[in-house]
Amino acid sequence: MAKVADKPFFPKPFLVFFVLSIIFGFGITLSEAGFPKIRHYKWEVEYMFWSPDCVENIVMGINGQFPGPTIRANAGDMVVVELTNKLHTEGVVIHWHGILQRGTPWADGTASISQCAINPGETFTYRFVVDKAGTYFYHGHLGMQRSAGLYGSLIVDPQEGTSEPFHYDEEINLLLSDWWHQSVHKQEVGLSSKPMRWIGEPQSILINGRGQFDCSIAAKYKNGLKQCELSGKEQCAPFILHVHPKKTYRIRIASTTALASLNFAIGNHKLLVVEADGNYVQPFSTSDIDIYSGESYSVLITTDQNPSENYWVSIGVRARLPKTPPGLTVLNYLPNSVSKLPISPPPETPDWEDFDRSKNFTFRIFAAMGSPKPPVRYNRRLFLLNTQNRINGFMKWAINNVSLALPPTPYLAAMKFRLSTAFNQNPPPETFPIDYDINNPPRNPETATGNGVYKFNMGETVDVILQNANMLNANTSEIHPWHLHGHDFWVLGYGEGKFSAAEDGRKLNLKNPPLRNTVVIFPYGWTAIRFVADNPGVWAFHCHIEPHLHMGMGVIFAEGVHKVGMIPPNAMACGSTAMIKNYPRKP
Amino acid sequence: MAKVADKPFFPKPFLVFFVLSIIFGFGITLSEAGFPKIRHYKWEVEYMFWSPDCVENIVMGINGQFPGPTIRANAGDMVVVELTNKLHTEGVVIHWHGILQRGTPWADGTASISQCAINPGETFTYRFVVDKAGTYFYHGHLGMQRSAGLYGSLIVDPQEGTSEPFHYDEEINLLLSDWWHQSVHKQEVGLSSKPMRWIGEPQSILINGRGQFDCSIAAKYKNGLKQCELSGKEQCAPFILHVHPKKTYRIRIASTTALASLNFAIGNHKLLVVEADGNYVQPFSTSDIDIYSGESYSVLITTDQNPSENYWVSIGVRARLPKTPPGLTVLNYLPNSVSKLPISPPPETPDWEDFDRSKNFTFRIFAAMGSPKPPVRYNRRLFLLNTQNRINGFMKWAINNVSLALPPTPYLAAMKFRLSTAFNQNPPPETFPIDYDINNPPRNPETATGNGVYKFNMGETVDVILQNANMLNANTSEIHPWHLHGHDFWVLGYGEGKFSAAEDGRKLNLKNPPLRNTVVIFPYGWTAIRFVADNPGVWAFHCHIEPHLHMGMGVIFAEGVHKVGMIPPNAMACGSTAMIKNYPRKP
Ligand SMILES: [Cu+2]
Ligand SMILES: [Cu+2]
Repeated sequence: MAKVADKPFFPKPFLVFFVLSIIFGFGITLSEAGFPKIRHYKWEVEYMFWSPDCVENIVMGINGQFPGPTIRANAGDMVVVELTNKLHTEGVVIHWHGILQRGTPWADGTASISQCAINPGETFTYRFVVDKAGTYFYHGHLGMQRSAGLYGSLIVDPQEGTSEPFHYDEEINLLLSDWWHQSVHKQEVGLSSKPMRWIGEPQSILINGRGQFDCSIAAKYKNGLKQCELSGKEQCAPFILHVHPKKTYRIRIASTTALASLNFAIGNHKLLVVEADGNYVQPFSTSDIDIYSGESYSVLITTDQNPSENYWVSIGVRARLPKTPPGLTVLNYLPNSVSKLPISPPPETPDWEDFDRSKNFTFRIFAAMGSPKPPVRYNRRLFLLNTQNRINGFMKWAINNVSLALPPTPYLAAMKFRLSTAFNQNPPPETFPIDYDINNPPRNPETATGNGVYKFNMGETVDVILQNANMLNANTSEIHPWHLHGHDFWVLGYGEGKFSAAEDGRKLNLKNPPLRNTVVIFPYGWTAIRFVADNPGVWAFHCHIEPHLHMGMGVIFAEGVHKVGMIPPNAMACGSTAMIKNYPRKP
Repeated sequence: MAKVADKPFFPKPFLVFFVLSIIFGFGITLSEAGFPKIRHYKWEVEYMFWSPDCVENIVMGINGQFPGPTIRANAGDMVVVELTNKLHTEGVVIHWHGILQRGTPWADGTASISQCAINPGETFTYRFVVDKAGTYFYHGHLGMQRSAGLYGSLIVDPQEGTSEPFHYDEEINLLLSDWWHQSVHKQEVGLSSKPMRWIGEPQSILINGRGQFDCSIAAKYKNGLKQCELSGKEQCAPFILHVHPKKTYRIRIASTTALASLNFAIGNHKLLVVEADGNYVQPFSTSDIDIYSGESYSVLITTDQNPSENYWVSIGVRARLPKTPPGLTVLNYLPNSVSKLPISPPPETPDWEDFDRSKNFTFRIFAAMGSPKPPVRYNRRLFLLNTQNRINGFMKWAINNVSLALPPTPYLAAMKFRLSTAFNQNPPPETFPIDYDINNPPRNPETATGNGVYKFNMGETVDVILQNANMLNANTSEIHPWHLHGHDFWVLGYGEGKFSAAEDGRKLNLKNPPLRNTVVIFPYGWTAIRFVADNPGVWAFHCHIEPHLHMGMGVIFAEGVHKVGMIPPNAMACGSTAMIKNYPRKP
């Protein structure tokens, strides 16, 4: 019962546009523009036995599938997902990563922020318009349910009758993730324990939910691992990329890892990067891409190599000392047999600590010509210091010395109904002490939890300078991929050390900064982003590394909440919002 | 922060009684009667690493303890438990097993029945009067959270100034449970899978949360197991029963096992049974007791044996082919060293399939003199057939061919506010086909889920004939301990085969039937109980074997719901009750 129906759908803006186009003769016919449709899905979430890396475990599945079903729609369509929670004791929500949720902030799928978690047995209907073509995905956003396997792809094609600004013959969609054998429940307890028990490195890298533990399909080139099967395993056989020679393929690559920063390469094939996070970029050619959790890319490849051979697809770990073998699969030139393994070893993943190489890739990403440009001035600039801290011996991450602890009442309804006791009404600090030494462990590592909100005026232009720093141990600083809900942002620049408004502020790229929804901060560095706070709602901005968010690495943004329309009552049946009187409710 | 305060407390009935006692000179002085008190606790539930049987796992703890803190109160006291859910994704509720909840049906702690589960981060305050002295316990009642370790003891002493009807010098409290190494989440998935994966036999029997896996403190008398330590293990060292010679001890024994039927014996000591499920019984002497999940007993022992020796306490599995070594500990005659192990082997647990022996014990339980007697006539009699079934290949248990599937909206609020779509308004069948062959597998094992309610008139006397039957496999029938919420019931009799109203109905014991809240049905047999439906509320009646209830083995009773007072709003912030309009709610 995955897909229920595709119905024609006429959103108000479309109808206005349609009528205007008739009056003014825009020259757009119905068959060209296509009708926006309703893409209707009925989903049930439940744990099920599954062997993502050939080792049986329980995963969170949707309609018996892992990863969940792929949503496919055209820009302008309305996606409707009736989500029923079939778990026995756990709530659930689903976040539509990269979808802006304009006019539907309650459908953003963030527990404690946009809605109450859906209780066991209950159904919540997500209804939102996908307004921009691109490569997206969805995932759980309660506790560590993303780590438990609650994710899937969301692909938006251009409006019917329009086309992408680049040519390709066919496409292949890859959703990358990392997988642990320890249950997420134990992982959570470990992270919340004193002393903290770290989850360690993943056992396997999954490509479309498929990996291989303790073996390799390229074993003959590797030492230590045994050869694994290319086929025959229903759940963990590798996802093969079947291609025809002499064609151009768009490969969509999204990463929903809990932890791992990945590097993607295809033996003998150059990758032409054309899209990042649902935004077109200035095409550039590269041998491999780095992809951090929360990011997505489209690359074009041309199958112009020796057609009698197959080629490796290799996905390895970067930015952390890898203990996980690369995820491997085969680019299969048809009609070759898949079992004809490539004649040379898989591409080597670049050295994990070669951050210069990582930066070299990242700094090549610019907006495609004709992309929206950022406002030239900001109204407000936040400086957000990322630090590892402790609270009474518990390990935490904090932003400007506040470790985010989400409240039981969702912010969106709490703010709309002015429930002033639902969260701390004082906003958190907008900057950090000027003399903070980012190159050494925090002098006073003790911090505190908080749940205050950064409130923006509707329409103001906000800069955020994400400032990395040393961790608790000397000489350590990690990458963090920061993801913003409800907005794309322009990435104005990156730099080493502490951001200097005088020096660095002048060098920001206002010409062709890429639009993204996720951006990385490098060790000991800063990243500057800009966005317009013009989407009424409450929006998480957080590190996309699941255990980091679990330990408090996030902040809450809000703007124009008074303009937010009718929040569905069952999005607010928890915490203090459950007590709201005189709010129209259906019996 | 377990216990907050004991405050004097004057419930309305007490004040009335107190004033009357002054007016009519009942001869009760304040110091004799004692003031009822408020027993105030603040609890936080969370998973924690723990080694209940010396193997590390995660358990559901309360305030960092496993089992949870013991509640101790006097009859008439009000217990107040402010329960905060510190879990990350799971709801939680706590049921106060054996407490009648007169006037407070919303405090019964049954998810989907008396209340909505408490969401992560939220606090729910349980407030109820414990009106009867006895040995009780509390436990989770959502999903299989009881199996996850969410339980503890609740001991009610007689009103201050009054005393028990038997003498003892000191007391020892034992809460028995069984323990699996597989997570409850995996257990749940297995039970809900097609084909079902059975949880198997427990790895360990726990005495006050302490057991020993893969070793035995009586190893020298057993083959195959290694000797385990008597002390030094903080979490799993055995709970030792320290006694002084020549005294009388009351040993309270409650079983909150997920599955196991247990047998309790102490080497060289006779047990005098005096209490069952919080009701006094005609004292009788026995070498050992059978205790099913959900039951409690008090036994008196006299420490009149050779004072220079210690003695075994042995708790073994009955009614299922045991694969779990007995739980063992030591009755330590002080001042002997605990390490002086008893000179002879531990008492042997009787043969698991010697049901005649089990019946012989069970049939000896009668109400103490002066106990309330049952009404001589019933107004209504339900015949409830217990069968194992399938639904589309999923394994289920059903009562009169209905397998209970709890709805997302709690019944109590749904009935009070007449939310007729919250559950099936047609009551389930009150009997089963007269020609049903209980000695063979069901002819048509296919069944269906249901969530209808058996509704009783306020005050009517209800008989329930629990009828056991053959399971899906030929020649198998299992015991089931049935537990009723909100009421004690009289156990009028047991019998073999199918209950015959004409034959068996005449032989029921109306003279001195014991009052219980849990009663067993034996393989291929029936058990007849009687109760007065005089407690306004909605009450679960179910098999206390956790996986059986999970697979649908329960029914819902209700009476006088229109008389139910103000349900706390946060007990009904889920399902359709979350949508109730115009119900007074605090902002
Ligand atoms: Cu991070
Ligand atoms: Cu049962």
